[in-house]
Amino acid sequence: MEYPPHVIIVGAGALGSFVGGLLSTVTRVSLIGREHHLRAIKEKGLHISGITDRTFHPRAAIIPEDIPPEKGTVFVFTVKGYNTELAVETIHQFVHEGDVFLTLQNGVGNDDIIREHLGEEGILAGVTSHGITFVEPGHIIHAGKGETVIGALRREDDDIAQKLTGLFNRAGIETRVTRNICGEVWAKLIVNAAINPITAITGLRNGEVLEFPELLETVGWVVEEVENTARANEIILPPCDMLEKTLGVLKNTTGNKSSMLQDIERGRRTEIDSINGAVVRYAEGTDVGVLLNRSLTALVKAVEGKEK
Amino acid sequence: MEYPPHVIIVGAGALGSFVGGLLSTVTRVSLIGREHHLRAIKEKGLHISGITDRTFHPRAAIIPEDIPPEKGTVFVFTVKGYNTELAVETIHQFVHEGDVFLTLQNGVGNDDIIREHLGEEGILAGVTSHGITFVEPGHIIHAGKGETVIGALRREDDDIAQKLTGLFNRAGIETRVTRNICGEVWAKLIVNAAINPITAITGLRNGEVLEFPELLETVGWVVEEVENTARANEIILPPCDMLEKTLGVLKNTTGNKSSMLQDIERGRRTEIDSINGAVVRYAEGTDVGVLLNRSLTALVKAVEGKEK
Repeated sequence: MEYPPHVIIVGAGALGSFVGGLLSTVTRVSLIGREHHLRAIKEKGLHISGITDRTFHPRAAIIPEDIPPEKGTVFVFTVKGYNTELAVETIHQFVHEGDVFLTLQNGVGNDDIIREHLGEEGILAGVTSHGITFVEPGHIIHAGKGETVIGALRREDDDIAQKLTGLFNRAGIETRVTRNICGEVWAKLIVNAAINPITAITGLRNGEVLEFPELLETVGWVVEEVENTARANEIILPPCDMLEKTLGVLKNTTGNKSSMLQDIERGRRTEIDSINGAVVRYAEGTDVGVLLNRSLTALVKAVEGKEK
Repeated sequence: MEYPPHVIIVGAGALGSFVGGLLSTVTRVSLIGREHHLRAIKEKGLHISGITDRTFHPRAAIIPEDIPPEKGTVFVFTVKGYNTELAVETIHQFVHEGDVFLTLQNGVGNDDIIREHLGEEGILAGVTSHGITFVEPGHIIHAGKGETVIGALRREDDDIAQKLTGLFNRAGIETRVTRNICGEVWAKLIVNAAINPITAITGLRNGEVLEFPELLETVGWVVEEVENTARANEIILPPCDMLEKTLGVLKNTTGNKSSMLQDIERGRRTEIDSINGAVVRYAEGTDVGVLLNRSLTALVKAVEGKEK
């Protein structure tokens, strides 16, 4: 029998649509998301242009009740961090024992929310560095190719991580499995915590940050604060220089606007609470100083509040 | 004989025009500044509306060569900090022994630039909290009444500080003399260092900062960093709670946009180098940490660079 019988993408924004679209070539996929996007997909399919150039036909569930409940479903979370709680409450009624929950969301803490509502079992996390941009309802761009890493949060679920990794690879999403997904998630958090608020505040594109040497000092201090917070929480970071990695991302995505800057420019709520705000929460009760993460969180929230 | 024979306002922006206008009722005053403003004053006088409501007739010097050199002149510096060096070079040719230099500029370090070029003698500093806004050439608004404090930087010039304080009071600018002008200048620096970059970055009016409790934490940390830097430089701050004072300014100027926010909005260069940038320079070689002042300086410079 094929594994899994059904994948439900919880939050079909840019990344969720990409993953759902590609997975729909190898298994049954349903998307939950915004109505105008799903309606367009229902009518004309999901068009991905750019590196991937093809139209996919995942099932678009305009209302969650559209989704036929099924045992062994894999729920892939790609909603914004501030909507995780709402998403978990919405899907709660469709969940069976043995279902699997994979969060591909930015930041940290989303797995805690899932665990709190849906129990300890079958929770996985993943990080992906594909660059996907939403163009218009029914159409996304695959602008940058990246790596995807998946891992289980409990040793008991390692085999599920293996299976999902296989599924992703069969669908054409190059993926490796890891036993240290927390380290991978925190490594991505470091990069996001350093780049996102600074670009959101200044309005700079990623590459432009490199033109301000004084700003790179601040990037370095944020990286250090998050690294220290990770260590205080017994996270084992991948063995690479995280500042170098962060500068590398700035260099390799020169023309990009960070997701947080895009959110600010569009007057939308940012994911600051799941990124720098989460670092501040994880630092509480430890002796790690997170002055800059606290200040950047406050500044971004003020900019966000101001835009409304 | 009247003292002084001549006051030259170096940088007749909003504050400089205000001081020059009022002083012109008790002594001869010349303004150096932007041509369109000076031309309007030459034609119709300087109109001050608001708390002060009157038209004054200081002499407007379109080119510095318009100014007749005279012994015993008082040069009042009200140019932006980043123009102090240029201003000093411009007036250098008109300076006689015994002339006096009074800086009423924001931030710290301007007196050092004056000293470096014009010698040790006769240098005074002052702070004023009048709220003055530029409306159009020839017209400024006196929006908020404040206190002015003047003091000499060397004990030997205390009598000059006394005389100038008398002059200011006779002109209707309520002024007191102090023997600790450095403490007063740094006290104002603390308030500016905390309010200016945060409002410039977020776009908030002063009073709106109070609506973000997390932002007030950052305000508190900036205050602390500048206080520590002052102490490490043997500055004796006035005996008041500087955080309380800063919050008081936010409360009392609720609707105001800080000068730095106004500069950002108008695409002009800010005084960040004389304010938070100066704190960073004064902290060098001490063991005081100024992480936030460094980061705020970098962020404001990036925003400034971006706007261009």
